[in-house]
Amino acid sequence: MRAEVLSRVGAVNVGLASFAEAIRDQGAPVAEVDWRPPAGGDAATVRALERLWGEHAQTVAAANGEVVDRIEAAVPRAIAVARAGDVLPVLSDRRLIHSGTRIEWERVCDPQRRALIAACIFEGWASDEQRAASLLASGAIALVPGNEHNHVGPMTGVCSPSMPVWVVEDERSGARAFATFNEGPGRTLWFGVGDRQAIDRVRFFRDELESTLARLIELEGPIDVFSLAAQGLQMGDELHMRSQATGNLLIRNLLAGFAALRDERAARFIAGNHHFFLNLTMAAAKCSLLAGSGVRGSSVVVVMTRNGTDMALQLSGLPGRWFSAPAAPVQDALLREGYSDADAALDIGDSAVIECVGLGGMALAAAPAVASFFGGTAAEALARTQLMSQIAIRKSRRFAIPALDFDGTPVGIDARLVAELDLTPQITTGVLHASNGSGQIGAGVAHQPNAPFRAAVKALAETLDANARG
Amino acid sequence: MRAEVLSRVGAVNVGLASFAEAIRDQGAPVAEVDWRPPAGGDAATVRALERLWGEHAQTVAAANGEVVDRIEAAVPRAIAVARAGDVLPVLSDRRLIHSGTRIEWERVCDPQRRALIAACIFEGWASDEQRAASLLASGAIALVPGNEHNHVGPMTGVCSPSMPVWVVEDERSGARAFATFNEGPGRTLWFGVGDRQAIDRVRFFRDELESTLARLIELEGPIDVFSLAAQGLQMGDELHMRSQATGNLLIRNLLAGFAALRDERAARFIAGNHHFFLNLTMAAAKCSLLAGSGVRGSSVVVVMTRNGTDMALQLSGLPGRWFSAPAAPVQDALLREGYSDADAALDIGDSAVIECVGLGGMALAAAPAVASFFGGTAAEALARTQLMSQIAIRKSRRFAIPALDFDGTPVGIDARLVAELDLTPQITTGVLHASNGSGQIGAGVAHQPNAPFRAAVKALAETLDANARG
Repeated sequence: MRAEVLSRVGAVNVGLASFAEAIRDQGAPVAEVDWRPPAGGDAATVRALERLWGEHAQTVAAANGEVVDRIEAAVPRAIAVARAGDVLPVLSDRRLIHSGTRIEWERVCDPQRRALIAACIFEGWASDEQRAASLLASGAIALVPGNEHNHVGPMTGVCSPSMPVWVVEDERSGARAFATFNEGPGRTLWFGVGDRQAIDRVRFFRDELESTLARLIELEGPIDVFSLAAQGLQMGDELHMRSQATGNLLIRNLLAGFAALRDERAARFIAGNHHFFLNLTMAAAKCSLLAGSGVRGSSVVVVMTRNGTDMALQLSGLPGRWFSAPAAPVQDALLREGYSDADAALDIGDSAVIECVGLGGMALAAAPAVASFFGGTAAEALARTQLMSQIAIRKSRRFAIPALDFDGTPVGIDARLVAELDLTPQITTGVLHASNGSGQIGAGVAHQPNAPFRAAVKALAETLDANARG
Repeated sequence: MRAEVLSRVGAVNVGLASFAEAIRDQGAPVAEVDWRPPAGGDAATVRALERLWGEHAQTVAAANGEVVDRIEAAVPRAIAVARAGDVLPVLSDRRLIHSGTRIEWERVCDPQRRALIAACIFEGWASDEQRAASLLASGAIALVPGNEHNHVGPMTGVCSPSMPVWVVEDERSGARAFATFNEGPGRTLWFGVGDRQAIDRVRFFRDELESTLARLIELEGPIDVFSLAAQGLQMGDELHMRSQATGNLLIRNLLAGFAALRDERAARFIAGNHHFFLNLTMAAAKCSLLAGSGVRGSSVVVVMTRNGTDMALQLSGLPGRWFSAPAAPVQDALLREGYSDADAALDIGDSAVIECVGLGGMALAAAPAVASFFGGTAAEALARTQLMSQIAIRKSRRFAIPALDFDGTPVGIDARLVAELDLTPQITTGVLHASNGSGQIGAGVAHQPNAPFRAAVKALAETLDANARG
């Protein structure tokens, strides 16, 4: 099957003879596809793609292969839990981490604002919401995007110094990533609810769950996150919108530890939170992508994130450089009764890191229950994964889908393919209320905007041109 | 989809015009199928089927509908655990329960003998294997089939008075069924290993696990077995050869209880036994089938079992009447390296009770990982379920398969359809060593013999004829 995908990838002839020639020159077969103007007809993007598939093709292909090799070779394991302020130096001053790319307070969306304000109160920096908002507006408390500090958080993605985090490490590459604990359903910061109940949840994390999870890891050893995720894929999870089978595998592994520790409250919380595994998957994905970052010439997307205002990405070949556009609404969404599209916040969260390693929206074929959530059948779930394989470098060697006879999930999102086919990654995600703090109101699929992918391939082509000249 | 199956069932015209006429008379559509001689050309069976599809058709259809309604309406819950001798009166004397139908010691297969001998030693009735064998051969210790006493056990299916059992009850019908705890992989009685290690496992059950599970049920409430099974079907389990996702759901539900009880050894045993849920499924299936038993005129199979020597079944409409034939070898089997078909014991265990409620071999479409185990693809797994739906009364309302867009599993095995199509139930099961006590050597699919189904339809037709006469 891998050869089939490589040839499909190599063979997309979208009307630019030079592309097809370049591919034929490399010995790849060329197949006919329904004609669409490449890159939606955007001339500058087309010119960049001509260079990336032309003179730079071998450089990019080698770099991309290296990136996906590194992503797939990483074995991210949760080796500890820690206080965020102790392991994330950026939090030593009065700063708060949030999901997405850099943003000023004025542009922060409502649910993320509520979570940031709640974090100020949780930290004791402000006694009420108004004072917290003033500190944030004045810059006395600064905002930093977690992605720039190896932290990822779902939805609002807020992390403050006193919150505990998972510490996930890939021993081979030395990459380390961090994520908060998942707060579960209901009135919680990650869903943009900042009331007392939401703050009590993170207090419970700080005062109790942190030490229990730390002792569980001491007792039962590090958690091999992707080993569990690979098993969970065999159990109907796509690991983004649904990871309950995987979470149950973790619970099974920790059962004896729980029997030893006698923390019933922690046990009841974890058993009752079907998203508990999500943040582990995210930290592990971030860890793998850090291992795959910084390979010169690579067009593989290693950061893809949204803060409810902007969507932004980074390529492995252009580390630290953000390419962004306004965040999209979540499409194909199923909203709770009483809510309409007008109530829905825009796409938000660092969780698209999951799609970058071949899970979530890339792995929908594994999770027909998720497809049915937004009206799809098992066949449509399969079709989504097949669609996403058009923008991926290859099929995963570690993440296999039973319904596809254990074929691998698409892994390594190639910005060239996204731009050329005008087919952006699809992220399975939740939908938050846009303005009233009522939290999650639905779930669906977020189709990412194409502008950042176009901008990224143009920047990559320029960089490679400059390198070639100089 | 349900209508489609009913029409498929109604419409199998296998060359006997009277069948098709009878069906047409009832308004069902008739489809063409590849012609095969009905009932393999067995004239007496054909005559019985003519009456069962003819003059008795309405009686049988109404009875079968009632049986499947009852099977599907049952809500079997594990309400307690108990010492077998305390809840199974038959065990008050020196008797041992085994899987399958009635059998004399001389005909008991090797793995079941080993388990029975081990049970004698476990009970303290004999100090060594030779003495135990003498007691069994002399009849001083009598053998009783669990199925006649509402007990089911996987593989050798041995139960003795001091072993703890699950107590599973359907409140509505009052049906109660029992099953031992699953012993897990390795050197165990259920796999026909009777050494010290195997006996130590049941001692651990008696001395420790029984009280821990009893307290867990007290703390966390009864276990709704089929609610968990229905969720497990969404997670790649077919609930016979594979029930680990379902077992993990149970573990999740019991997590807080385990945290309260502090029995690390029990926790480690349950977490390490991926078959732990199997015996719960079996007891729940038996409970449902007891609720569906004794409906006059019904051709639905409510007992189907094997003891490694004989295969036997009972119909709901002929309660207590066994129809048997020599047990079959397990086909489509994957054996461990170093073993050949000559090493394999014949099909054994009460676990076919699972197929009678629409799980296991009826639900293979839910578990492509199981299909791959014996060389099948996801498509072949789907095909198996579709094949089995040809011999089932209807599709389950509670057991749905994601890959079939949540269509129900085939439920209610109709002995008429089995006999007519010469298509016997397929049971996903393990394979034991035939002679040397090395336990499980593989797994596969056991195709049941057709003779008991033919005998059963003949007996049912005779009974209905006799009733009609007066």
